[in-house]
Amino acid sequence: MSSRPVRGTTRSVEEYRDTIEQTLRPLAARAVTRVPVPEALGRLLAEPISSPVDLPVFRNSAMDGYAVRAESVAVTPVTLPLAGVVAAGEPGTTPLPPGAALKVMTGAPIPPGADCVVPVEHTRSDGSAVIVEQGRAAGEFVREAGTDVRVGEPLISAGVALAPRHIAALAAVGLAEVPVFEPIRAAVLTTGDELVPAGTALRPGQIYNSNGIALAAALAANGVAVVSVAHSTDDPVEFRRLLSAATDSADLVFTSGGVSQGDFEVVKEVLRPLGGTFGSVAVQPGGPQGLSVVDGVPVLSFPGNPVSTMVSFEVFARPILRELAGLPPVEIQELPLLEPVRSPAGRRQFLRGRVTPDGVEPVSGQGSHLVAGMARAEVLIDIPAEVTAVAAGTIVGVRAL
Amino acid sequence: MSSRPVRGTTRSVEEYRDTIEQTLRPLAARAVTRVPVPEALGRLLAEPISSPVDLPVFRNSAMDGYAVRAESVAVTPVTLPLAGVVAAGEPGTTPLPPGAALKVMTGAPIPPGADCVVPVEHTRSDGSAVIVEQGRAAGEFVREAGTDVRVGEPLISAGVALAPRHIAALAAVGLAEVPVFEPIRAAVLTTGDELVPAGTALRPGQIYNSNGIALAAALAANGVAVVSVAHSTDDPVEFRRLLSAATDSADLVFTSGGVSQGDFEVVKEVLRPLGGTFGSVAVQPGGPQGLSVVDGVPVLSFPGNPVSTMVSFEVFARPILRELAGLPPVEIQELPLLEPVRSPAGRRQFLRGRVTPDGVEPVSGQGSHLVAGMARAEVLIDIPAEVTAVAAGTIVGVRAL
Repeated sequence: MSSRPVRGTTRSVEEYRDTIEQTLRPLAARAVTRVPVPEALGRLLAEPISSPVDLPVFRNSAMDGYAVRAESVAVTPVTLPLAGVVAAGEPGTTPLPPGAALKVMTGAPIPPGADCVVPVEHTRSDGSAVIVEQGRAAGEFVREAGTDVRVGEPLISAGVALAPRHIAALAAVGLAEVPVFEPIRAAVLTTGDELVPAGTALRPGQIYNSNGIALAAALAANGVAVVSVAHSTDDPVEFRRLLSAATDSADLVFTSGGVSQGDFEVVKEVLRPLGGTFGSVAVQPGGPQGLSVVDGVPVLSFPGNPVSTMVSFEVFARPILRELAGLPPVEIQELPLLEPVRSPAGRRQFLRGRVTPDGVEPVSGQGSHLVAGMARAEVLIDIPAEVTAVAAGTIVGVRAL
Repeated sequence: MSSRPVRGTTRSVEEYRDTIEQTLRPLAARAVTRVPVPEALGRLLAEPISSPVDLPVFRNSAMDGYAVRAESVAVTPVTLPLAGVVAAGEPGTTPLPPGAALKVMTGAPIPPGADCVVPVEHTRSDGSAVIVEQGRAAGEFVREAGTDVRVGEPLISAGVALAPRHIAALAAVGLAEVPVFEPIRAAVLTTGDELVPAGTALRPGQIYNSNGIALAAALAANGVAVVSVAHSTDDPVEFRRLLSAATDSADLVFTSGGVSQGDFEVVKEVLRPLGGTFGSVAVQPGGPQGLSVVDGVPVLSFPGNPVSTMVSFEVFARPILRELAGLPPVEIQELPLLEPVRSPAGRRQFLRGRVTPDGVEPVSGQGSHLVAGMARAEVLIDIPAEVTAVAAGTIVGVRAL
């Protein structure tokens, strides 16, 4: 890779991402609510769960077969009188008569006096007696109570995002509800006089608003509850009013647009007097960025170009939001770059790319307005800030979109 | 690995999985419904989408700056009269007077007569004139209409599961709704006299029903809509009635329990006369399996041990269900096994395991009833059928749970 030194006038991606992570980390301490176990899939467990029961609950048979004493089948073949049948679900309190066999189904209680089970495959029976063809040692095919988990033992740790296997364990120990964290609640507020909602006719100079819908989808896909998606014109009064509504209802607010060098930068104009920091981050796309805290609520201000908005989300917000939701980290691979690329000096570049069996290639069209092009991408190709040219075949970092 | 030949008396995992996949593949042809784009995240696009508009919709500025003719700034510095300001959202029909500059914001229409934009950073202005310090060639910082996508060009292919970047593109071209496939509708029907629901007190011989809740969670996590979760005792009349309710409302039915060698195998007893196939698959856990088609609806019958049920789902159902939902395939890695393991001859074994930085290790407790143990696992370790012993350090296949 060719490289030039990074200019010092803007913040680095790493520094700005760290600042955002520090600002958002307190959102880990969220309200706890109890939800029914069948509705707990994907939720983040708020407290460690101990088992309220032994599992297995009682000593039971691992097989369909015959409960016997091992000493009765020490020499085989042997014919034992059949003293009855114990189905799964029966109390299983009838003792095994000495020298006899009791038929047991998988999961049925082992009768008092029995110490092993001979699987049905190794027996023959006429209904009144059973011929056992293969002996068993004490304990064989017997599931002892508490051998999976004992009452009071840890079952699932706090902070786990509940997968189907956790749901299975919670149900198996008979828990009906579990304490989970409320998800982070986010509000999305887009800006720009030129934006109109989908489904309406465009007048000259207007375009469709994609950032609101796209950010809401990106948030939902990363474990965040989207409580509102609103749009403001470039009127500061309207923006301030919608911002207050957003901070009133959400733990975190995302804005798009109004952060760069134009004459009508409503987001910067309203938030800077409230203590917001606006400036340039050494990244492409997505250079102009703002971070504020309004009424205790963090406000992340992304630039308005659709690709800039989405890449800003991927780079600055998604990793910490996934961590706070207990989701697995964003997948990062190292792959050979299939085409040479150039990159601006001093800015970390995230090219939209596609993975092939041979490596990764940039999709055609890398402008920050090329939102249709981004739909054809699967990954971001990460070109370090100091690099200005990358030869084909170079190994590059690639993060899944 | 030590190995012995596979016995021929049972079906192999591969053969049985192929049979299930063939049975389920027709579920790809599902009903199509139109949903609002903001609600389409994760849905499977039923038809290819072409763009209804050019994107960019009109020729616009890529920067905050000054729209000029390149020839006016061929020699710099140069002072040009400022003819006005075009904000984003304005019609932009005012032509650029010859030799003048018009201030334009990012996204604003390029005025007729201009052919490039000089970014504001390379200018100075007193409000009535602008001093341009750096020239630009025709086309620079101008986004031409249709350079992202043209009206009628393909935007997103059919069969794509809609990610946030697709939602962004759909919104950007102004689509309000998209055609998506209805998800596969599944019913879950558990069986067993011994099972009671969570939250109730256990009587002797009873255990909590985890399979219904766990299968429902596993289905939901893999793009399937669960329409009902019911439980039947081992009474064939009750099971038949609940089975009819399930096949009436669902595209696919899962049952658990009642498929092995006991005296009260209600699933096998009811489904075999209806044409169901029941038998042994060379897998551990999960050997006894049943597959039926009732009133045109596939019915997959898994064994009742909770771990057997979940592993059956992972091995036989999850890969094809993910494919039919347009989800990425189950992640399979190859990792060194950290502890030696033994495996039954002739049966492909799926051990519950945990991934460490050094490789993969089995979790303690591999019995098919150890549902709490399964909650501690993250992966299944795949031991081929012919293998009976695997040394520590051997590379093994590992699939994410």
